[in-house]
Amino acid sequence: MTILNEISKLLQLVKENKPLVHHITNYVTVNECANMVLALGGSPVMADDLAEVEEMVSFASALVINIGTLNERTIQSMITAGKKANQLGVPVILDPVGVGATSLRTETVTILLKEVRFAVVRGNMSEIKMIAGSDVEIKGVDSIADDENGVEIAKLLSAKLGCVVAITGAVDIIAEKDRVCTISNGDKILADVTGTGCMSTSLIGTYAGATSDYFLAAAAGITTMGLSGELAKQRLTDGQGIGTFRINLFDEVSKMNAETLLNGGKIQ
Amino acid sequence: MTILNEISKLLQLVKENKPLVHHITNYVTVNECANMVLALGGSPVMADDLAEVEEMVSFASALVINIGTLNERTIQSMITAGKKANQLGVPVILDPVGVGATSLRTETVTILLKEVRFAVVRGNMSEIKMIAGSDVEIKGVDSIADDENGVEIAKLLSAKLGCVVAITGAVDIIAEKDRVCTISNGDKILADVTGTGCMSTSLIGTYAGATSDYFLAAAAGITTMGLSGELAKQRLTDGQGIGTFRINLFDEVSKMNAETLLNGGKIQ
Amino acid sequence: MTILNEISKLLQLVKENKPLVHHITNYVTVNECANMVLALGGSPVMADDLAEVEEMVSFASALVINIGTLNERTIQSMITAGKKANQLGVPVILDPVGVGATSLRTETVTILLKEVRFAVVRGNMSEIKMIAGSDVEIKGVDSIADDENGVEIAKLLSAKLGCVVAITGAVDIIAEKDRVCTISNGDKILADVTGTGCMSTSLIGTYAGATSDYFLAAAAGITTMGLSGELAKQRLTDGQGIGTFRINLFDEVSKMNAETLLNGGKIQ
Repeated sequence: MTILNEISKLLQLVKENKPLVHHITNYVTVNECANMVLALGGSPVMADDLAEVEEMVSFASALVINIGTLNERTIQSMITAGKKANQLGVPVILDPVGVGATSLRTETVTILLKEVRFAVVRGNMSEIKMIAGSDVEIKGVDSIADDENGVEIAKLLSAKLGCVVAITGAVDIIAEKDRVCTISNGDKILADVTGTGCMSTSLIGTYAGATSDYFLAAAAGITTMGLSGELAKQRLTDGQGIGTFRINLFDEVSKMNAETLLNGGKIQ
Repeated sequence: MTILNEISKLLQLVKENKPLVHHITNYVTVNECANMVLALGGSPVMADDLAEVEEMVSFASALVINIGTLNERTIQSMITAGKKANQLGVPVILDPVGVGATSLRTETVTILLKEVRFAVVRGNMSEIKMIAGSDVEIKGVDSIADDENGVEIAKLLSAKLGCVVAITGAVDIIAEKDRVCTISNGDKILADVTGTGCMSTSLIGTYAGATSDYFLAAAAGITTMGLSGELAKQRLTDGQGIGTFRINLFDEVSKMNAETLLNGGKIQ
Repeated sequence: MTILNEISKLLQLVKENKPLVHHITNYVTVNECANMVLALGGSPVMADDLAEVEEMVSFASALVINIGTLNERTIQSMITAGKKANQLGVPVILDPVGVGATSLRTETVTILLKEVRFAVVRGNMSEIKMIAGSDVEIKGVDSIADDENGVEIAKLLSAKLGCVVAITGAVDIIAEKDRVCTISNGDKILADVTGTGCMSTSLIGTYAGATSDYFLAAAAGITTMGLSGELAKQRLTDGQGIGTFRINLFDEVSKMNAETLLNGGKIQ
């Protein structure tokens, strides 16, 4: 069975099982993340107070930790929720938004990676390189690195962390031990909408809530976002722009099905 | 005068008086709540710091308390604002999002119901049952309970709390003392967009800012959301999905008028 | 060169330089602010923890401070980030949302104006009058003042604060020392969407990240928003409302170019 066939089956499982995806995330793109989980067929819940995260994650099928607008209160919640998820076998997905831009972000990611066992880490090339330890300049939370050695970096970091590593960019790279794939779906217009990275991570979390194959979940989430981005752009007509593109994107994720995936997915 | 006639008149009052609706709410759906208040004709204000909530609520025509992403800082603000609203005769609406999912939510709702006198409590069946004291499983913040005895539960809780109780679901139920109505507008696609429950509560708050009949305000808010959902879905064309539906929903609320309400409202 | 020509050139600079615009802002309209910066061609970053704001602002081309949902934690971050921006020569833009509505907002603005040197202050007439010291009633965060002496007030406050003052309303006024202009773009439907004021401020911040002429940046931001609002409304068809208008607004900002500005801008 090809990986696109496997992704198609996994999408069906999401729609049947409606996995609950607990998020501790930023306040910029939180609404989009929730709506993406719903569009795919999952059920989102956002809760970040230390007094409730352990209980909430115990109901969840996956936990997404996104450091987009972290603060002292939520950092502790992330660690505590992540540890509890580990105890319960709930997969934890990390989106290290802007790691390297500030010491707070870098130190928080270091602590999270030490204290919590992640199923998937997804970032852009700058973020992943920063975690991998390479020297790379960071400008705010957007990636400026571009690297043909991406596959090697993904493999190295995957081995170091013992989890799936997903790098999103012009070509996306997913690595886990001896498995690697690249995905060439997507369109650069996706970078013109805030939070498409966060949304990809939430889609990965939703898929991860319906399988124990987190490499597949990462490939599924990123293919779904990239392909939806292509289709959303194709639907744009004269006079439309970024606003309509964003709406189309949610339309396309909500309509995603096996046929669309098999026809449009570009995974090597 | 039928209740739909009364709702139509109340909608007109909202547009004339532009009630200011103070929210202490979650960061997931706060933007949607603000835009729903505006779409109906009200004026939203969001303020949650303890140092300003009493002053802010003193300008308001209604206060909406939504516990979607509560934390220690905002819990105290909710209690303080609620008490001040009670002193001033400003109606307070409660959306007990996910009560029962965690102790923090359950305990917060218990304290709120003890310290603050509410005009309306709106929740799904799981949430309302939890408050009413029945045993019911809660999965995250989404309702999994379904109950034909909903009218009885609404009546009992209404009597217990001394306020209007609104239960939203396939059929919505509103109860207050000896008044009960059921509303069969709506479409299941509404559950595929995050925050349609929160938005309903904000619409109730907006209507409650223009009348002292909170039973009518609750019926008006829920009918407006349900009917807008139906109309928003009817406008979907081939190739559209959840993204466009959400936009249509705001369109429909902003266009809602007496004729549409009288033609489409389904209240028994 | 006319001011519209200068604005057109500045828009081109934004698209070339992609200025990073650091925001410390409210959780109601933060997503819209981020998407507006992107639509114009800039790069947004939102970070509000005291432990990282100084580092983050050091990467930025502009800092936007918006007090829409301020709290004790973020007030200190605003002051600290603002001071750092001043040291580095990064322009700081203030949106004093709802100043005058509560003591917390009024005192915070007083402290900010004392501690931080702003490049531009943008508000509605009520907010600007409150800062200027006139007596004016405030209802929530929406302006109810209307004043033909707006130009005088803008000039006086500009002289008092030593920065550009922008007042948005039916006619927008921008003043700095001996320069004044009025802008008659816009449509009253803009007031029916939450955060169009905040978005205007973020557009000003984005333009300010690409020039040292902050009067021009303010005129550019407000003209862009007003003209986009007009065009977004023109595209509305029967059956559409506020939801579609909001999407069109993002479309129009993302499509804005020299030709559209020169044809549609109404600056005196």
